[in-house]
Parts: sequence; C-alpha cells; structure tokens
Amino acid sequence: MSTTASSAPQTGSRPGGRSARVRAAVHRAVRELVADEAGDPLTIPAVAARAGVHATTVYRRWGAVGELLADVATSRFSGDFVVPDTGSLRGDLERYASDLAKDLCDPDTLALVRATIGAGGEQGAAACRGERQRQLEAILEREQDRGEQTPSLERTTDAVLAPLYYRAVFTDDPLTPEWTRTLVSHLLPD
Amino acid sequence: MSTTASSAPQTGSRPGGRSARVRAAVHRAVRELVADEAGDPLTIPAVAARAGVHATTVYRRWGAVGELLADVATSRFSGDFVVPDTGSLRGDLERYASDLAKDLCDPDTLALVRATIGAGGEQGAAACRGERQRQLEAILEREQDRGEQTPSLERTTDAVLAPLYYRAVFTDDPLTPEWTRTLVSHLLPD
Repeated sequence: MSTTASSAPQTGSRPGGRSARVRAAVHRAVRELVADEAGDPLTIPAVAARAGVHATTVYRRWGAVGELLADVATSRFSGDFVVPDTGSLRGDLERYASDLAKDLCDPDTLALVRATIGAGGEQGAAACRGERQRQLEAILEREQDRGEQTPSLERTTDAVLAPLYYRAVFTDDPLTPEWTRTLVSHLLPD
Repeated sequence: MSTTASSAPQTGSRPGGRSARVRAAVHRAVRELVADEAGDPLTIPAVAARAGVHATTVYRRWGAVGELLADVATSRFSGDFVVPDTGSLRGDLERYASDLAKDLCDPDTLALVRATIGAGGEQGAAACRGERQRQLEAILEREQDRGEQTPSLERTTDAVLAPLYYRAVFTDDPLTPEWTRTLVSHLLPD
C-alpha cells in the first residue's frame, strides 16, 4: 500500500505546507499500523518508515509514541461529527448515542482508542473523550436555553457516554440501536 | 530493586515449582515496568531482563506482549476482592462500587488496565473486566435467591460498572465515595 503524502490535504504554497504534509503522512501511518492487529507494538521508527519520513523528524515533533497517539486521537475525535439538533433533548441524546455507538463499533477507531489509552497516559485518555463530552454539554445547554430542566452533565456522562465507551472498549457485546435507546430512556424516564 | 523470584510463592518440590517461580518473576517484572510511567513501551526482552530469565522462555510461554499483559491482568483481577454480603442489594452494590473505585484509583492498577487494553486486544479487555462482572452477577443472584426483584445484569453493568471504569480510565475526575453511592441510588431509587 502506498503511504506517501499524495492524498494529504492540499496546502498549496502556504508556509505550513510541508509541515502539514508530514503530519498527515505520519498520522496516516499511525492509523494504518494501529489498525493492523497482527502488528507489533507501535514504535517511532516503524511509523517513520511507513510515513516515508526520517525518524528524527518524528521524535523532534512528537517526542514519544504516547504523545503521537494522543495527537492522532485528538484529530480523529475532534469535529468529525456534529452536535445533533432534533428539537428535543431525548431526540438529541438518542442521535448522539447512536452516532457514538456507530463510531466506536468501527474496528479501526476502536483500535486507535485502545492503543491511545495504552500508550498515551492521561493525555491520551483526554484525547479519546474530550470532544464527546463537550458535545454532550452542548446538547444539555441547548435544552436549558429552551427553558427546560436537564440532568447534570455528570449524570448524563455516567448514564450515556460511560456505558458506550465501556461496552466498546472492555467487552465484545454489540452496541445495538435498541441498547443505545435504552440508555437514554433510563436517563429520561417518561 | 531486586527482581529475583525470592519472594515468589513457595512451591516446594511439586513439579510446577520452577515454572511457577518463573511465572511469578515475569509477572512482577511486568507490573513494575508498567507502573514506571517514564518507561518505554513494554517489550519481551525488557521484561525478561528485569525478571532475570531468558527472553526465549518468555516468548515460548506467552508469545507476545499482549498475551503476557492479559495473563498478568487476569491474575491481578481475579479473586482479589470478595463478593460483599451486607444483607441488602443496595448495601452490597455500594460496597462493590466502593471497593472497585478504590482498586481503580490505585495508580499501578490503572496503569496495568491501560497497558492491557492497549496491547492485549479482546483478550486483554476480557482480562480487565471478567471477574468484576461475575461478582456483580453473584450479588444480583443472591438478592434473587432472597425472593427479591433486581435490575438485570446488563442494566447494573451500565449503571455501576461502566461509569467506574470510564471515569478511572478516560478521565482524571476522582472516584469519590459520594459519587459511587450516587451511581447505586440512580439504579435503585427509593
């Protein structure tokens, strides 16, 4: 498989061009190596070889595998799905849970979450959850702006976000649509 | 620090003696290396060197880092805390949640969970959760034997077990006693 930067975002002649291409190539190499289950533990030299850059470039920019994985996870889990706006808290949370379940069911995403948790420490953990928690906060705030009462962010995290991550990362039970709806209905009983 | 097998379980002259000592030394080496946050990613040669055994011995017995971590996690998370028996489901679940929270707050335990999730794949994930889910099942079954209704194991897992693991592994929020009691009170409203 080609691992050149040819499909990296076209940055034209702006000053960050080369730097952005290196970053894209390195990120892609990390995602490919992590997705390859038969692979050995991720190392900087392996990433550099696959990305077609010098290992020293990777060491200089990211320092260690943990920081590199956290950076890739931050890119992966930021801004890639929008905050649902169905008109009701229940609808928004059901859509949110369903979107997150689909995302976590993707084997490559799951492999990236697991690898980042394993090597990225606190920074990696934050990278895997950050945007998701902010999205939940935005959903709750919108409902409050409508003048409605909502459960707290903590309670919503415990009831919806936590079971989704736990089931995806720690079990091989499926994240079915029925189950994700059940999570919301326990949080918001009729 | 000495990493010899001198404090391994005394197995006397039974046939498994040497094998058990090697296993204890290797397990201890893994726990120590994983707990050392500044450490590089875990490798079999590093484990073997610290345990004072040949790397080939470790490869032959465990095959790869993922399997080794899963084996260590299985030992760590099996049979090390008993199923609470306070006389009520609420009391049992509060004790269970509090015990699990204390355990997951231990930095070495958390480091082992994260490393095992990172390198151990499905097998590692199962090692990190298995016994805990069976303990929850035992608590629910005891209550049912008393003739009482209980939430399902799935619902109890989502409401109590999942938030504990999520908060410990993915956030740096503290697992306070007040919070663990809240998890149970949401599952079992008065």
